[in-house]
Amino acid sequence: MTNSGSERPGEFELIAELFAPLATGAGAFGLRDDAAIATPPAGHDLVVTADALVEGVHFFASDPPELIARKALRVNLSDLAAKGCIPSGYLLTLSLPSHIDGLWLRAFANGLAQDQGSFGISLLGGDTTATPGPLTIAVTAFGHVPEGKMLRRADARAGDLVFVSGTLGDAGGGLACLKEEAGPSNAADRAYLVDRFQLPQPRIALGQALVGLASASIDVSDGLVADLGHIAESSSVRVQIEAARVPLSPPLKALWGTSQDTIVRAATAGDDYEIAFTAPPENRGFVRGAAVGSGVPVTEVGRCEAEEGVILVDEKEREIPVSRSGYVHF
Amino acid sequence: MTNSGSERPGEFELIAELFAPLATGAGAFGLRDDAAIATPPAGHDLVVTADALVEGVHFFASDPPELIARKALRVNLSDLAAKGCIPSGYLLTLSLPSHIDGLWLRAFANGLAQDQGSFGISLLGGDTTATPGPLTIAVTAFGHVPEGKMLRRADARAGDLVFVSGTLGDAGGGLACLKEEAGPSNAADRAYLVDRFQLPQPRIALGQALVGLASASIDVSDGLVADLGHIAESSSVRVQIEAARVPLSPPLKALWGTSQDTIVRAATAGDDYEIAFTAPPENRGFVRGAAVGSGVPVTEVGRCEAEEGVILVDEKEREIPVSRSGYVHF
Repeated sequence: MTNSGSERPGEFELIAELFAPLATGAGAFGLRDDAAIATPPAGHDLVVTADALVEGVHFFASDPPELIARKALRVNLSDLAAKGCIPSGYLLTLSLPSHIDGLWLRAFANGLAQDQGSFGISLLGGDTTATPGPLTIAVTAFGHVPEGKMLRRADARAGDLVFVSGTLGDAGGGLACLKEEAGPSNAADRAYLVDRFQLPQPRIALGQALVGLASASIDVSDGLVADLGHIAESSSVRVQIEAARVPLSPPLKALWGTSQDTIVRAATAGDDYEIAFTAPPENRGFVRGAAVGSGVPVTEVGRCEAEEGVILVDEKEREIPVSRSGYVHF
Repeated sequence: MTNSGSERPGEFELIAELFAPLATGAGAFGLRDDAAIATPPAGHDLVVTADALVEGVHFFASDPPELIARKALRVNLSDLAAKGCIPSGYLLTLSLPSHIDGLWLRAFANGLAQDQGSFGISLLGGDTTATPGPLTIAVTAFGHVPEGKMLRRADARAGDLVFVSGTLGDAGGGLACLKEEAGPSNAADRAYLVDRFQLPQPRIALGQALVGLASASIDVSDGLVADLGHIAESSSVRVQIEAARVPLSPPLKALWGTSQDTIVRAATAGDDYEIAFTAPPENRGFVRGAAVGSGVPVTEVGRCEAEEGVILVDEKEREIPVSRSGYVHF
């Protein structure tokens, strides 16, 4: 763990004090070295991913620090989940503006600690620097998967079925509630949707269960259509999504209704952090078993065909126009 | 490789186009997946480190983009060097303000390409996001070292000798030149010092040669006194540095003279990115051999004793007061 660029030494001492207990892994050396060891278990590949959150772009400055910390971890863990990995640790690079105080940092560290416990991971190190700009949280997460078994984007084949976990559009609905764009909704529905926006649920157990079953996999961060578009492009297949099958939660239906427009919105809203994946038809039963075993509902939403691209179709297989295929952040 | 938070899709397409050729490693999947594989060779540990550079804190906005890119890589490679590692790859998280244009990005990618060639590393992935604040470049670098052989901070013993590579204070002198604090100096000296500030030389070959010879090692990023202080603290020894032995380059001597004050300044200036290390006396000859073999001069500057802390002493072993032990960035 290193730090630089600050004339606020007290703050960096506080960070050292707050973060040292988070270095639970042997390779972290208690954050008292310049580097960490992240060797995967024998017979496993080490999988790495990085995602950053920026104040005013990915979260509101007024969001609870615990939630910001947990979301920063979880967007990375969601990538590992979709790749079939068991997460093991992370590096944290914090660029801190001067308005961040000790109280904020303590709450942020509490959020990290809470999710480290939930996901069995350790802080391995990182960097802390001052910044004149917005709070920026860059995480690199590590996981492992049996050698050669990482779920890729590129291995879908024509004829494969297309599935998605959970429900879609909830985070988009939650963001609308926070921005007060939303119409009236009861308090429980609102809380559910806001929670889905603020606290993604990485589908770790499901992702692991899909190793050997799914042909291609991605987490839904940019929106179902955009992310399945990535699979289509990498795999050179066409992904056809049946609009009527896109899974929507009751609170989202209460908020946005069930029109075709709602479905398009749900299929193009981002930040869902569900897993979208493909699997050959003969694995359909095993996929159902994986869903039951991991406690996460999985819905069959379409299929892969020859050709290319991604399309959303109605019950008569007519293409539904989708004006934007990905998410634009606030 | 992912991106988010931007309504500048053209820019992110350009980044994809510019960065894809940098993904030379097999585990990078051409940046066309959500994660990369960084499994170390059999019998080796994977070593990871992260360091970020922030515009206005670690570099000037007007610095050449190639140099910013190379410095961002090199401060990380320097950590790996001091740990005895062979570098293999890196993840890059860019937070881009709107003033960054295609020309800048192209030059930045050129800088990365140049250093990837020099150091035999591959871009493995990362994240690109918009930011309303300063350009922020967070790098996570990967390397490997024979299992259990990473050079630590914590293994120095009383009786060990203390060494440092290269010369100290040059980067501090270069920064002073850039800030025009400096007195007159000839153009070649100025160019040497500025280059030492802008383009660190990670001591990769030396670091590898020290595996099995050095007892503890750290790269000099905060200043010799501060960084040897980290070894002293982690190893529970006292490090005594002889001021007269602190190696100074002729251009730095021409700039700052050779007074005790200059030595203190050189021993507390940061950004040198040399390796400071300890080794038992019986390894002195092998250390000299490692220096010759790697082409990097190494100077014996002191020794480890019982007790704790770090002190700079004059030729009569009187302690020289050091008002600040680390570097404060501009």
